[in-house]
Amino acid sequence: MSAARMRFVSPRNLRLLRTGTCTGPQSSPLTCPASYVSPRALSSLTASRRGLPKEKMSENGIPRPKVLTLDTMNPTVKMVEYAVRGPIVQRAVELEKELSEGIEKPFAEVIKANIGDAHAMGQQPITFFRQVLALCSYPELLNDNTFPEDAKNRARRILQSCGGSSLGAYSPSQGINSVRQDVANYIERRDGGIPCDAENIYLTTGASDGIVTMLKLLVFGQGMDRTGVMISIPQYPLYSAALAELDAVQINYYLNEDNCWSMDITELQRAVNKARQHCLPRALCIINPGNPTGQVQSRQCIEDVIRFAAKERLFLMADEVYQDNVYAEGCQFHSFKKVLFEMGPEYSETVELASFHSTSKCYMGECGFRGGYMEVINMDDEVKLQLTKLVSVRLCAPVPGQALLDLVVNPPQPGEPSYSSFIKERTATLSALAEKAKLTEQILNTVPGIRCNPVQGAMYSFPRITIPPKAIQEAQEKGQQPDMFYCMKMLEETGICLVPGSGFGQKDGTYHFRMTILPPIDKLTILLNKVKEFHRKFTQQYS
Amino acid sequence: MSAARMRFVSPRNLRLLRTGTCTGPQSSPLTCPASYVSPRALSSLTASRRGLPKEKMSENGIPRPKVLTLDTMNPTVKMVEYAVRGPIVQRAVELEKELSEGIEKPFAEVIKANIGDAHAMGQQPITFFRQVLALCSYPELLNDNTFPEDAKNRARRILQSCGGSSLGAYSPSQGINSVRQDVANYIERRDGGIPCDAENIYLTTGASDGIVTMLKLLVFGQGMDRTGVMISIPQYPLYSAALAELDAVQINYYLNEDNCWSMDITELQRAVNKARQHCLPRALCIINPGNPTGQVQSRQCIEDVIRFAAKERLFLMADEVYQDNVYAEGCQFHSFKKVLFEMGPEYSETVELASFHSTSKCYMGECGFRGGYMEVINMDDEVKLQLTKLVSVRLCAPVPGQALLDLVVNPPQPGEPSYSSFIKERTATLSALAEKAKLTEQILNTVPGIRCNPVQGAMYSFPRITIPPKAIQEAQEKGQQPDMFYCMKMLEETGICLVPGSGFGQKDGTYHFRMTILPPIDKLTILLNKVKEFHRKFTQQYS
Repeated sequence: MSAARMRFVSPRNLRLLRTGTCTGPQSSPLTCPASYVSPRALSSLTASRRGLPKEKMSENGIPRPKVLTLDTMNPTVKMVEYAVRGPIVQRAVELEKELSEGIEKPFAEVIKANIGDAHAMGQQPITFFRQVLALCSYPELLNDNTFPEDAKNRARRILQSCGGSSLGAYSPSQGINSVRQDVANYIERRDGGIPCDAENIYLTTGASDGIVTMLKLLVFGQGMDRTGVMISIPQYPLYSAALAELDAVQINYYLNEDNCWSMDITELQRAVNKARQHCLPRALCIINPGNPTGQVQSRQCIEDVIRFAAKERLFLMADEVYQDNVYAEGCQFHSFKKVLFEMGPEYSETVELASFHSTSKCYMGECGFRGGYMEVINMDDEVKLQLTKLVSVRLCAPVPGQALLDLVVNPPQPGEPSYSSFIKERTATLSALAEKAKLTEQILNTVPGIRCNPVQGAMYSFPRITIPPKAIQEAQEKGQQPDMFYCMKMLEETGICLVPGSGFGQKDGTYHFRMTILPPIDKLTILLNKVKEFHRKFTQQYS
Repeated sequence: MSAARMRFVSPRNLRLLRTGTCTGPQSSPLTCPASYVSPRALSSLTASRRGLPKEKMSENGIPRPKVLTLDTMNPTVKMVEYAVRGPIVQRAVELEKELSEGIEKPFAEVIKANIGDAHAMGQQPITFFRQVLALCSYPELLNDNTFPEDAKNRARRILQSCGGSSLGAYSPSQGINSVRQDVANYIERRDGGIPCDAENIYLTTGASDGIVTMLKLLVFGQGMDRTGVMISIPQYPLYSAALAELDAVQINYYLNEDNCWSMDITELQRAVNKARQHCLPRALCIINPGNPTGQVQSRQCIEDVIRFAAKERLFLMADEVYQDNVYAEGCQFHSFKKVLFEMGPEYSETVELASFHSTSKCYMGECGFRGGYMEVINMDDEVKLQLTKLVSVRLCAPVPGQALLDLVVNPPQPGEPSYSSFIKERTATLSALAEKAKLTEQILNTVPGIRCNPVQGAMYSFPRITIPPKAIQEAQEKGQQPDMFYCMKMLEETGICLVPGSGFGQKDGTYHFRMTILPPIDKLTILLNKVKEFHRKFTQQYS
């Protein structure tokens, strides 16, 4: 189910579910079956409350019905969709298996361009980071002279702030104190000296964890009082998934594809006004640089968004995990916090903001360590206590990820032995990404029927594709979204794994796919030319 | 709020909340204020839906009310309690700070016996595990001859199954395939050859993550159809916290303190019968070996529990993270899965079970890596697809924790270079724990007014304490649970940080504390004698 559709499903069908009926103008034939609690299921549930019917208790081998079935599981979980690892990826894994078993395919390998997984695409980790992590994992190595002194000093400092000087101890719920302090110093440097209090920093299990935790605090209510959360369309499907699971109302605002996926205040206003007729909008989520759309927001746009949030009394959630991934001429990353504070006390002292960052993207691409942080600004003190209590239930974020984050926010400094190699490695990765961003835009825009905005930042292109009516018809006959049909066909014929635009949401009647720019240049070139060739054939076949 | 109290709060007060009223026989003065949505808050929420009142939009510096306050946050989050890191621990941290600032205290150091954090208490990590983790973090070390060959082979094998041969790549949502296979082999060995399918293994971020994920699948419904989940009292507060957050009904069954905290089927039956009058019991959670109570369940008891679950059609959740922590003569760990399969097809083919394990406990105590797994048995295939979809939203469990888990389930084998040192280290840790378990029971039972069951397993003692009426009265005047009052006083006077029994739940009118047995023997002896002396003084003072 697409994010656009989920908007209509989440609020109402879940209530229908609760009643076990699924009729009336609100229920949608496409989404109803999946979320339908059959009367049988309900009656068996109810029966089991009144004592179990004889046949259920049979001791003579008559199989008992399962406790947990599709009909009797949490319906909000069924609403969850996550296209980045959806059916197309499962098929890609099958194809890899078939290839390894020697089954003939029209391609030699499957190329997974579906997910921003830099190391899986051959990007090398930063040597210094891995040296320190090895030293922290096995402190015996502190006696090894092959390790540079600055790596050893970082490792000693991290271990000193761990319980029993071990990565194996729990950290405080909010994160290791010295790491939170280093994060605060990093943010101050990044934002030109605007103060950052380490007490506002929470270390998280990747950025996803922080985003879901913030939504948990914000979201509640039923009917007209159900919480609404504004997210961009296209969006990163973590947001639609979390909102579905939390049974919140997803309020879609559309990015302007014709203006390089920019954010438009009149569109935000339209969306919030419409939403106020059926829910309580309480939060506004922004992804900058954009995922999947790759745009980098102007300072002016961010100011306008902050004014809008203040006027409409919305809690701002700024997903800034791609803050180092800015490639386009004249584009620059502006943190929401910096702009907020430069707008003066009327805003800097009132607008509530949570900003999220991660070790998974930028130049390090260390997804597997699940490191990240969030900074909360102008959050009510009592709510902060509730937040700290809530995160304490999960004990702490993974400590190796916290250690890695400490290195990201506090890398080698000029004069330190590892400085030059660190700069060399970081620059190489970022300039390669910039080159790939340009290459992707250029080649895709040579294809008739594909139109690609500049990849100003992040790690993806999200080109618009023209799908011939015949293909749309065949997709509908298969009960597939047309761009899913398109991507599946591409996977089967070329081995290239992309994610259909319908998994991120898009204007009705438009079709896209998301493709990462992460493969090495040579591989990326081949991939793009295969896409070009596939699109030509596909268009021909269905014209 | 104690688990016992939460039992009365969770189901009803949350509904009262939704209506914003807080009256009637069901609302409890102790829990109401925290969870009360004031009419003011609601009306301001509603107002904001109908367009913002002028004063809220003031541009001239009049402060805007916050979007997110205690009155306007998700009420289920407010219901969450996690005593293991509750107020007493926050006070302990303050005291440590005061000591470091040179402020005079009646003690030289704070001893945190509140949480099962082995490394923080000085337990050393297993050398082999840390060598492999260092090799995986910084593969350059594979050329270092000081590392044993078996450590290098393990590291190579792990890296080969990581994307781009890097711990920095995402793993599959369910976990690294080879690690899941190793977990399956471990379970087969542990259970005497009963087959285990790697497809039933999900790698998790510690055991907590798996437990919460399973509850998410199981829990839904309103009113009479709200899902009820049975948990032991005393319990590990992750369970009460998760059920509060998910707005499920917590169904308490009491362990039998007079019979070494054993589980009693008639008590299970009483609890489920009572619960069926107001909710739908669907799951039964067991912790074996027990936390906080340290009992190890007999094979017979486990069989009876499985029969009960089958008869009452309950999904079984077996928290078996202490499976290596069994100390008492004649006690032995029996996995629920093994017993289930030995009961024959009528049970082994029908009873749904999820079993949880972790890298945080046993002999390794690697809490910081947040490694763990769950095995699901007899789970409906469609539900398994939903489970896999749900975990994919969080992308994957931390990969270093997955690597560590692989070593735990696949340690050095006889004939391998690291075997003897591994066995030596593991044995040393486990026998020290056994000694500490005995020591704790012995010393505590010499104290008049403290009665301690044998610590058969796990890492805690949960002694019953007699609190004089005068002390109970003083506690009540302070609005504190009597055992919180007791533990706070102990912390202030001795620097020993324990967790009051009320944080785990206990029979009304009984009082306990949880104390870890993890400090080194000498420190533990001092600690126990301090507890003894404190209890003597406390009893005297209030008699």
